[in-house]
Amino acid sequence: MLALQLQTESRIPLYIQLRDQLRALVHSGELRLGDRIPASRELAQQLGVHRTTVANAYAELESEGLIEGHVGRGTFICGDSAPRPFTPAVRPHGYGGENGGVRWESLFADERGETGLSRLTPDVPRDTIAFVTARPPEEFFPVEEIRRCANAVLRADGRAILQLGNSDGYEPLKKEIVVMLAAEGMPVRPEQLLITDGCQQALDLLCKAILRPGDSVVLESPAYPGAIAIFAAARVRCLAVPVQTESQDGRAPGLDVDALEAMLMQNRVKMIIVTPDFQNPTGTTIPLAGRRRMLEIAARYQVPIIEDHIYSRLRLRGSAIPSLKALDRAGVVIHIDSFSKISFPGLRVGWCVGPESAIERLRLVKQSTDLHTDQFSQATFAEYVRRGLLARHIAKMRKVYQSRLEAMEEALEKHMPEEVSWVRPDGGMSVWATLPVGMDAGELLIHARERGVLFMPGRHFYTQNPALNTMRLGFAPLDEKKIGRGISILANLLETELSKRWRGARREEPTRVALV
Amino acid sequence: MLALQLQTESRIPLYIQLRDQLRALVHSGELRLGDRIPASRELAQQLGVHRTTVANAYAELESEGLIEGHVGRGTFICGDSAPRPFTPAVRPHGYGGENGGVRWESLFADERGETGLSRLTPDVPRDTIAFVTARPPEEFFPVEEIRRCANAVLRADGRAILQLGNSDGYEPLKKEIVVMLAAEGMPVRPEQLLITDGCQQALDLLCKAILRPGDSVVLESPAYPGAIAIFAAARVRCLAVPVQTESQDGRAPGLDVDALEAMLMQNRVKMIIVTPDFQNPTGTTIPLAGRRRMLEIAARYQVPIIEDHIYSRLRLRGSAIPSLKALDRAGVVIHIDSFSKISFPGLRVGWCVGPESAIERLRLVKQSTDLHTDQFSQATFAEYVRRGLLARHIAKMRKVYQSRLEAMEEALEKHMPEEVSWVRPDGGMSVWATLPVGMDAGELLIHARERGVLFMPGRHFYTQNPALNTMRLGFAPLDEKKIGRGISILANLLETELSKRWRGARREEPTRVALV
Repeated sequence: MLALQLQTESRIPLYIQLRDQLRALVHSGELRLGDRIPASRELAQQLGVHRTTVANAYAELESEGLIEGHVGRGTFICGDSAPRPFTPAVRPHGYGGENGGVRWESLFADERGETGLSRLTPDVPRDTIAFVTARPPEEFFPVEEIRRCANAVLRADGRAILQLGNSDGYEPLKKEIVVMLAAEGMPVRPEQLLITDGCQQALDLLCKAILRPGDSVVLESPAYPGAIAIFAAARVRCLAVPVQTESQDGRAPGLDVDALEAMLMQNRVKMIIVTPDFQNPTGTTIPLAGRRRMLEIAARYQVPIIEDHIYSRLRLRGSAIPSLKALDRAGVVIHIDSFSKISFPGLRVGWCVGPESAIERLRLVKQSTDLHTDQFSQATFAEYVRRGLLARHIAKMRKVYQSRLEAMEEALEKHMPEEVSWVRPDGGMSVWATLPVGMDAGELLIHARERGVLFMPGRHFYTQNPALNTMRLGFAPLDEKKIGRGISILANLLETELSKRWRGARREEPTRVALV
Repeated sequence: MLALQLQTESRIPLYIQLRDQLRALVHSGELRLGDRIPASRELAQQLGVHRTTVANAYAELESEGLIEGHVGRGTFICGDSAPRPFTPAVRPHGYGGENGGVRWESLFADERGETGLSRLTPDVPRDTIAFVTARPPEEFFPVEEIRRCANAVLRADGRAILQLGNSDGYEPLKKEIVVMLAAEGMPVRPEQLLITDGCQQALDLLCKAILRPGDSVVLESPAYPGAIAIFAAARVRCLAVPVQTESQDGRAPGLDVDALEAMLMQNRVKMIIVTPDFQNPTGTTIPLAGRRRMLEIAARYQVPIIEDHIYSRLRLRGSAIPSLKALDRAGVVIHIDSFSKISFPGLRVGWCVGPESAIERLRLVKQSTDLHTDQFSQATFAEYVRRGLLARHIAKMRKVYQSRLEAMEEALEKHMPEEVSWVRPDGGMSVWATLPVGMDAGELLIHARERGVLFMPGRHFYTQNPALNTMRLGFAPLDEKKIGRGISILANLLETELSKRWRGARREEPTRVALV
């Protein structure tokens, strides 16, 4: 019999309590590798909770690699997600001497493993309708064009491409990006441009260059989990400024600029990270007036703004709003961007634009990080841009995404219960939906998965106070038919749940409610 | 008249004093952008020092981008290498409002700019004989083979390559590396292998995962400047363990294992970074007995060893010694490696092998650093290895390097004054030479440059107490004829200097002596 005690009066959901207690039993050694744990139905009876509560806890532990279900045999402890005992790397001679070797687990800081990011690249079964990712769909990847560009650049400049390059980037690519940015209202000189391995690395370099453990940054709430992961690993404090998902109390959608100002007044902030266009995950866009105010506030408080521009070229309706960089007169903005969303992410190439002195420092940090970005991919992208193929690809993909967004919004309108709301994004790759307060999108996911539908529960996007009733629905990777079918399945699940449990009497202990 | 005061009795070389004082005058604002400074001859007269002292200081400041010489016009202040005044990024409207914007210089920690790394990728004039780098020569780059491999992988797996990949690496490449390592006596499972953007990134990931500001690591002295740069930026203390360049007092060449043990006894060390084969820059190799003792010591003190294996496959004579990884029974070794030296460095792909728990943590750090290594290059390398082309290329390059090393050693024997000694490396890309104590290879470089020869002064490879009389002579990038000519020029310079000033009476103030 396992020593488990669930507190029904706690504000912590029962399945989370159960998950944490089971995990602790593994770490303390009371549950060991190979131990069988009770079936979810059995344990639910013992604990007097709904079977789904146990199923939810087990699903989480399974995704952590801690337990494993074997059909017909039961569920077993198969790992120990965090502090793990020492395991020799190679032991061909069955070494068992007096030297214990290195206790690797004590070397690594614990929070390294606690990033949400690992959960964001899940393996998705083939027949699933996965609204999970914000990735461009593979079927439109310009493989043949890239092959021809790669051939051309190796023939023209092969030796230089294969040789060690400059830390600030491959010159022909920098030239192409300078031309592209100038056409978009962002005149920059090559000295203001640094090539990186995508936006993730740009953020990481900024973190290394500017932040120290204990420093504070302002992050949108909700925010991109990749940013949360960087700051968590660097022991940087994230101050969450809410993103308004709708106009309310005279506030425009997007980052709450009043809250930002209050935050800067009360805290010593080292930088602000913001995605003005089609923010991930909410899809909101900061209006022009908000951008101007942000710049004014940032200059007044002398806090740099890191502008994540990664989705900006994927505007699907309405007219473009100048970027913070384009509006920046005081030199407070560092602008990060990438080819990942506008073309494809497997070649890791992005860039970073800012005042020359800042870029020079970042170049030195880049140099000691990985010398430079892969030159084969840089050169291939340079050719891809130079031939006008990127611009054509973006135009094509915007049409694809427009149609997919329309399909999603139609399906949401048609199928979703009226208690569910969502943001209408002007671009990007996903729709942010909100369930009635008290519902947990994480629990919905357990059941949705059984019906072959996946999405990203909103809690992954928060550093604190997660809105458990939120979810991100990526439309970019799915065709219109799958979008319609997937939304209809989700809507059905929600409809059933709402009629059964939610409508009429409000729950007193919503956290105890197991969904479906 | 500039306020300069040189202390002839100081242990700090005069040209360093002069450089630092001039730099301080720029930072304090006494020298400003565009100011003309005296010609070296003129200033030398004023200060009562040899002209070369001033020339040396100017050369350093020029390489920092602080001053610029214009033929016929003189030498001018053209920048301010460190704390620089705020410069707006883009000022199309001549913005000059009350908002000062962000003081970028106060945001960046100063030591970031102080890495020696930036000086290690110098622009080399075409007609120069540059013994500077440890890079493979471009004329042997297998551009056409790489082009065919890139074509093949894009055709076979293009969409998957262009899509976001796994943080631990592209599976077909991992498979090829596992096969290659097994054949080399290092059986590893794919879970013990992480693909990185080269060794530089592997070191950086290890630093991020394991080290905190104030932690200590053991580094070879002299060591690879890229490692020094990483630890300096991360505010990690480097404990220098000397590398013996020759057998002496019963000690074998390579890292001084007795000194290592003493260091571990007296300090809390978080990791040891070591290059057992053809260490950069000394070219020394740790014998088998030393490797076994290192492993035993590391296990006893529970300190992990980071084994830099980057030059190992470039053995040019003698027989291979098993790597620390191959000998590791206690699981104390993390092994880092790369394609950079054995093929070409422009495609940034390397790897890291270690105990599974350590690799899993590094994978998470890698994920939040840049998601994953470029997949186009990973796939291209996988094909290049799979076709057996890498093995063939290594065999070919070893012959090339053998011949170049022989040419260098012949030239050294033939031309060098007897006061100059050097290490006979069994492999790698460079020869480490030592001038008589008191001579400064940095000063020699000034004059060598005038005669069209460049090399790397030894001081770039030290974290403390640099041996100023050492130099690294890279033989890999130069053909036999150039090697012979370059060494003969260097030898002539040294011969002249030694006859003029060194032989006979020993100098009392060697630091005041300007070379030639």
